[in-house]
Amino acid sequence: MIGEIITIGNEIISGETQDLNAWYAAGRLTRAGLRVKRMTMVGDDPEMVTIVLRQAKHSSEFVIVTGGLGSTDDDITNEVVALALERPLCIHQEMLKKIKKIAHKRNIPVTNSLLKMAYMPSGSQLISEKGVACGFYLIEEGVPFYFLPGIPEQMRYLLDNFVLTDILNRFQVKDVRVFKLIRTYGLTEPEIAEAFRKKRALEESVIFGFYPQFPENHITITANGEDSSKVQELVEEAQKEVLGILKEHVFSVDNEELEEVVGRLLKEKGLTLSTAESCTGGLVSHRLTNVAGSSEYYLGGVVAYSNHLKESLLGVTPQTLDTFGAVSMETVKEMAEGIRKITGSDLAVAISGIAGPSGGTKEKPVGTVCLGFSSKDLSEARTYRFFGSRIQVKQNSAAMALDWIRRYLCGYPFLPGV
Amino acid sequence: MIGEIITIGNEIISGETQDLNAWYAAGRLTRAGLRVKRMTMVGDDPEMVTIVLRQAKHSSEFVIVTGGLGSTDDDITNEVVALALERPLCIHQEMLKKIKKIAHKRNIPVTNSLLKMAYMPSGSQLISEKGVACGFYLIEEGVPFYFLPGIPEQMRYLLDNFVLTDILNRFQVKDVRVFKLIRTYGLTEPEIAEAFRKKRALEESVIFGFYPQFPENHITITANGEDSSKVQELVEEAQKEVLGILKEHVFSVDNEELEEVVGRLLKEKGLTLSTAESCTGGLVSHRLTNVAGSSEYYLGGVVAYSNHLKESLLGVTPQTLDTFGAVSMETVKEMAEGIRKITGSDLAVAISGIAGPSGGTKEKPVGTVCLGFSSKDLSEARTYRFFGSRIQVKQNSAAMALDWIRRYLCGYPFLPGV
Repeated sequence: MIGEIITIGNEIISGETQDLNAWYAAGRLTRAGLRVKRMTMVGDDPEMVTIVLRQAKHSSEFVIVTGGLGSTDDDITNEVVALALERPLCIHQEMLKKIKKIAHKRNIPVTNSLLKMAYMPSGSQLISEKGVACGFYLIEEGVPFYFLPGIPEQMRYLLDNFVLTDILNRFQVKDVRVFKLIRTYGLTEPEIAEAFRKKRALEESVIFGFYPQFPENHITITANGEDSSKVQELVEEAQKEVLGILKEHVFSVDNEELEEVVGRLLKEKGLTLSTAESCTGGLVSHRLTNVAGSSEYYLGGVVAYSNHLKESLLGVTPQTLDTFGAVSMETVKEMAEGIRKITGSDLAVAISGIAGPSGGTKEKPVGTVCLGFSSKDLSEARTYRFFGSRIQVKQNSAAMALDWIRRYLCGYPFLPGV
Repeated sequence: MIGEIITIGNEIISGETQDLNAWYAAGRLTRAGLRVKRMTMVGDDPEMVTIVLRQAKHSSEFVIVTGGLGSTDDDITNEVVALALERPLCIHQEMLKKIKKIAHKRNIPVTNSLLKMAYMPSGSQLISEKGVACGFYLIEEGVPFYFLPGIPEQMRYLLDNFVLTDILNRFQVKDVRVFKLIRTYGLTEPEIAEAFRKKRALEESVIFGFYPQFPENHITITANGEDSSKVQELVEEAQKEVLGILKEHVFSVDNEELEEVVGRLLKEKGLTLSTAESCTGGLVSHRLTNVAGSSEYYLGGVVAYSNHLKESLLGVTPQTLDTFGAVSMETVKEMAEGIRKITGSDLAVAISGIAGPSGGTKEKPVGTVCLGFSSKDLSEARTYRFFGSRIQVKQNSAAMALDWIRRYLCGYPFLPGV
């Protein structure tokens, strides 16, 4: 089943807002075995909306439209859809009732902003609600059109809880699609491309994709077919091939983030971790604590942005700072040892570098970043050179720090420094 | 001048990758006074690419196409464009020379992966290079088509340094467009919608947009016209109206992030800041240090994820933790006072809460977050209740902490707690 996704909103085509809804919907549809052949974004512009809705009606088997169902004056999707599909706009009694009920429950007045949302194209069926904003669908010449609100949480809820099942039931989809996302860190895209030239020929139905996702590089494997176990087998064979080519640079084959991999490994080994950050400014601890349950193994850390804090909180000696500087292997070693001692953690990682845009010197240009590691059996430091903006240097440094922990826990060597 | 943006790539329509290129290009074009009427994403699919390229040729005045110019096997844009626009694919001598030169400079072999990129549709003109991947353009029945690589840094560089000026020169654009982004924190979208019902009527050419950008809410003002000073005046009047309606909830009218506003205010007043974070796990310090030059006013902080660190590093008393718990106004007050004393900073903010998904109780459900503030003249704590996922609770808590600092520095009261 092949469909398309349409996003309506001036904020999208003017570049003010990123359209994460189409991206999310495309991912969910694809993983459910459906195919998206086009994603289109247009403004709150009756002419363009009419063009894309009519085009979709004639070339797609299902259509998902997001955006413009809210309460502010620029939310005009209902009106425009009524015009484009030539269905009069009328008060939807069920929607009206819902709006009144919610207003009563929250003890807010039924304002005109709320009432506006009850006017819908004739023939619309409500999609189960979450909050005030509500979706609807209608069947236009056999093609189901789903209209969802633009607020990501609401859109995702309605898509996951109604739209996906509705499409799958409606079309009795049988084809199986197996998808595998392999994440790597530490190789450039051309290095991966070259490595892949040596791979064995695999069945044509197995498709590889290569996607730089800064600072990582992702490889996807996809296969389609009616025989589920055959498709599964093909993908597993392809995955084995990729692992053979990229080896320990692969950190995840199960859609895990680097911080989730690190967390899982720490839990498995019953070890705890602490961090001492300078140039990454808390990004490593932020990523670690994005994982639910991270308090089991992550004790905490220090963001020692000033030299004073490197001394007073982490115990880096003034001599080390004076002789080698804040961005040096000697300093990060002492930072890592310091935070491990203070927190009593099993492992510790430390980062100090020049994120830029200023602060670089000839010997230590912007992007120079030192990493330190401390555990009972290992004390190690290396210097790396990263490129790009301030944020990118932070991102690459934080990923490298997480990757060090992963590599230590798996028994792989750290990536070589400069 | 009205144009459109086309993104080519299976990774986009399958939802594996977010298309940030179309978003970026749309923003740059719009701010330059050009209009984007449609953004379309299709896969590496000759049929769909042909449809959208031909459609664009007949309905747009300029077309920007991104993606698929790289070195891996799935980069097939050149071939597909050659087919779709019926221009034979031939070796581009200038491109070939560039590839050889770069390979020589980097001391890498001229592999087939690199050579592949020298085959281009006939009539293509190179767009100045950055790195190996290079863009090109061609004029198809009077409409310029710009083909740019999918890697965001390269695409942005070529767009900013060549494509934008080329379009503006080619069409001698005169219309002026003034755009203003107003950022708010602390009001919900319906609250903003209601507040706006009271606004004065303004000239019709002034357009307002309302965009939830979790956890902020953004308002845009746009006006177009040939008379630059008149358009500017209209937008300024509208901005004054918005500020009158939303008052101190507005934190920025100059496209500044909350952390940039905080940084600017701290620098203006010559004050320093430190942070003590528990549930936000370093997100506040990460945001603060995203700003270039933040080391001038941000000294650092502690991520005290464990109770042990709250005591040993921040000096929270065991009695406070035992009596009131880690998520309490008493604890965050001591955390803020503790970090201020250790770092010697003028101001300090502390956060402790239950980000979830587990860890909630009846008295302190998931989303309960306590904020503490400490300065020479003020010691304050409040409890908030946030909704949403673990990440959203972290995001809202971090934004509230930054907003407290802003409000303190501007003399506004903190937002009321629960």
